Amino acid sequence: MSLPSRSEARDRVLRATVATLASSGFAATTARAIAATGGFAPGVIYYHFEDLPDLFLATLRWTSEQRISRYSDVLASTPVPALASALRSLYAEDTSSGHVAAVQELVAGAARGSPLAAQVLVEAARWEELAASVLTRFLGGTPFEGFVPVMATAAMAFYLGLETLSHLDGDRTRSDAVFDAMEQGFAMVAGFFDS
Amino acid sequence: MSLPSRSEARDRVLRATVATLASSGFAATTARAIAATGGFAPGVIYYHFEDLPDLFLATLRWTSEQRISRYSDVLASTPVPALASALRSLYAEDTSSGHVAAVQELVAGAARGSPLAAQVLVEAARWEELAASVLTRFLGGTPFEGFVPVMATAAMAFYLGLETLSHLDGDRTRSDAVFDAMEQGFAMVAGFFDS
Repeated sequence: MSLPSRSEARDRVLRATVATLASSGFAATTARAIAATGGFAPGVIYYHFEDLPDLFLATLRWTSEQRISRYSDVLASTPVPALASALRSLYAEDTSSGHVAAVQELVAGAARGSPLAAQVLVEAARWEELAASVLTRFLGGTPFEGFVPVMATAAMAFYLGLETLSHLDGDRTRSDAVFDAMEQGFAMVAGFFDS
Repeated sequence: MSLPSRSEARDRVLRATVATLASSGFAATTARAIAATGGFAPGVIYYHFEDLPDLFLATLRWTSEQRISRYSDVLASTPVPALASALRSLYAEDTSSGHVAAVQELVAGAARGSPLAAQVLVEAARWEELAASVLTRFLGGTPFEGFVPVMATAAMAFYLGLETLSHLDGDRTRSDAVFDAMEQGFAMVAGFFDS
C-alpha cells in the first residue's frame, strides 16, 4: 500500500471542504468538521493550508477551476444546436457535486474587502472569459459581436444569481425552465437566420 | 412637539436596519448597533418586532417593497426607448440608498430553510413579476411573447448576481457597461424591427 501523493492528499482536503460547506454551511465548516467528512486528522489540513481562510480561498479556486475545465472540455466539442442541453447537464453536475452549494456558502461568508471576496471576483472574471468564448461562436462575425464582452458579464451575473436562488430553495424547476427556453430560443433564432 | 406615529417609528427602525446592514454587515447588525444608527433606544426595536430574525425578515420585505414601488412608478411612465437609462438611474439609487448592500447582507445571512431564505424567494418572485410586466411592453404580440415568464426569471437572476458582484467590489463599471449595452442594444433592435 502506498501513501497518497502530496497533491492527492491536498485534493482530498479540498474535496472534503466542498462537501462540508455544501452539507453544513459556512459557519459550521470548521477544521474538525472537514476532517470528519474526509476521514483524516485535522492536522492534515494545517499541513497543506495555513489556516481556514487560506483553505476557503483555495477551495473556491479549486472547485471553480474543476468546473471551468469541465465546461471548457464539454462545450468545445458541442455543436451550437446542442449547447442548451449541454449547459443543462453541466448545471445539473454543478448542483449534484456540491459545487453550487459550496460556492454560495463561500460567497455568503466572504466579508467585503476580504481576500475571499477578491477571489470571488477573480473567479467571476474567469467564468466571464469562458462565457465570452462560447458567445463568440454564436455572434462572431454578426452585428452583435461587439456585445460579446457585456453579454458575457450578463451571463455570468445571471448564472451567479441562479445559483443563489437554487441554493436557497433547492428547486430545479427554475433552472429547467431557463434551459427549456434556451433550447426553444436557439431553435427560433436559428430558424430566423436560416430564412 | 408631537410623537411620531407607530408606523413612522416602525419605519425608522427599518431604515436604521438597512443602514446598519449596509455599513456594518450582517454579523455586526445587533439591536444595539441598529439603535445607535437610528438614534433611539434598543427597546424601541422590541416594541415593534419580536426579535432580530423577525426584524430582518421585515426589513427585507420593506426595502424590497419600497424599491419595487419606485421601479413600478418610474417604469410605468417611461417610454420604451428611455427604459435603459431609467434602469441605470434606478440601479444607482439601489446602490446609493444602501438597498443593494442590505439585501446582499440579508441573503448572505439567510440560512437555507430559514424563514429569511423563504422571504428572499418571495421577494424574488415579486421582482420577477415586475420584470414580466416590463418585458410584456416590449414583447407582447410578438413571437417572443411566450418567453416573457422565463426572461423575467433570467432578468431577476441576472439582477441578483449583479448585486452580488457590485456588493463585493463596490465597482460600478460592470453595471454601467451593462446599461450602456442595453441602450445600444435597444436602439439596434428598434432599428431592426423598423426596417
